[in-house]
Amino acid sequence: MDFGELQKQVDFIHEIDKVKYIQRKTRLFNSDRAENDAEHSWHLALMAIVLSGHSNQDIDLFKVIKMLLIHDVVEIDSGDIFLYDNVVSHSNTEAETIAARRIFGLLPQNQAEELIAIWEEFEAGDTAEAKFARAMDRFEPLLQNRSNKGGTWKEFNVTYDRVVQKKSVIKEGSDLLWGYSKMLIDKSVEEGILTKD
Amino acid sequence: MDFGELQKQVDFIHEIDKVKYIQRKTRLFNSDRAENDAEHSWHLALMAIVLSGHSNQDIDLFKVIKMLLIHDVVEIDSGDIFLYDNVVSHSNTEAETIAARRIFGLLPQNQAEELIAIWEEFEAGDTAEAKFARAMDRFEPLLQNRSNKGGTWKEFNVTYDRVVQKKSVIKEGSDLLWGYSKMLIDKSVEEGILTKD
Repeated sequence: MDFGELQKQVDFIHEIDKVKYIQRKTRLFNSDRAENDAEHSWHLALMAIVLSGHSNQDIDLFKVIKMLLIHDVVEIDSGDIFLYDNVVSHSNTEAETIAARRIFGLLPQNQAEELIAIWEEFEAGDTAEAKFARAMDRFEPLLQNRSNKGGTWKEFNVTYDRVVQKKSVIKEGSDLLWGYSKMLIDKSVEEGILTKD
Repeated sequence: MDFGELQKQVDFIHEIDKVKYIQRKTRLFNSDRAENDAEHSWHLALMAIVLSGHSNQDIDLFKVIKMLLIHDVVEIDSGDIFLYDNVVSHSNTEAETIAARRIFGLLPQNQAEELIAIWEEFEAGDTAEAKFARAMDRFEPLLQNRSNKGGTWKEFNVTYDRVVQKKSVIKEGSDLLWGYSKMLIDKSVEEGILTKD
């Protein structure tokens, strides 16, 4: 048997284990422990499966799932950037592009090219699939912060306008999810777990 | 806006956060920390994406991914059962079936029925998709134990014959992966990290 291609795939499988060590700022729904990128990616993929019917546009759901499973793999090299970071931009960086080439580049060439293209599509955020995937990525921490009585909003003094601005990305993927999100954000102000200037 | 269906989906999304607390016996590839079910499920889904070309039969890969993302959700209620446990059978139990009905039952009925059916298909292990998904579930801990110089084999005194017997499930999903797995198992004996009676 020739294990040449398989060995490359196993090297990739081994490498992405590191995603389990990348800590996010956001805490789990049910405890104070920070969530890691692997748990986050798993949760978003399952969210997309149950919420896909609310997408504004027809989507290739399988492609959305692939996007969500791989979207944070580049952080093995480039690290997690906090959504409300005031210094570093939470968007595609040169470091992330180099990371994508190195990590997906462990795979056989055709697979590397496919996954890099899907990751770039997610980052660009232009297609219906990318918009819905990005909506998932914004919706999960909103639910988590609600569950954690303010969570990172309180911890990092993030106020209402900033939350609305950042979370409005959800609207591009789903009007219904955005309506629900806006309702939760407003409720958070009423409950005193989010500050309105 | 009517959030009735969405609220059920959010309740499910909230509930499955608990999967992140279910500790497996197997350790991560790169450290001594035990892996949790969410990380495990994420890893298996990505493994299926890169390894699907080695399946013995044509498969609906998206269905395989769904199986892998949800396969351990029932453990929220029924707990993780160790593959080499000598007392409790590592197969579908009454407790797991009740758990599936409760947890997936949080969703709107059509979605609950779809996911329960997919979970049952995985558990039965008869279809091409279930066989390939189960191969992933056996292949990951093999790689982890190799990476951890014996890992749970050493920790729980599991010997060669038992490993070959349990891992041979991989062959039903992929002959190539089984050939590779057998090579790794034999190598583990040579290296002294697995005992042959």
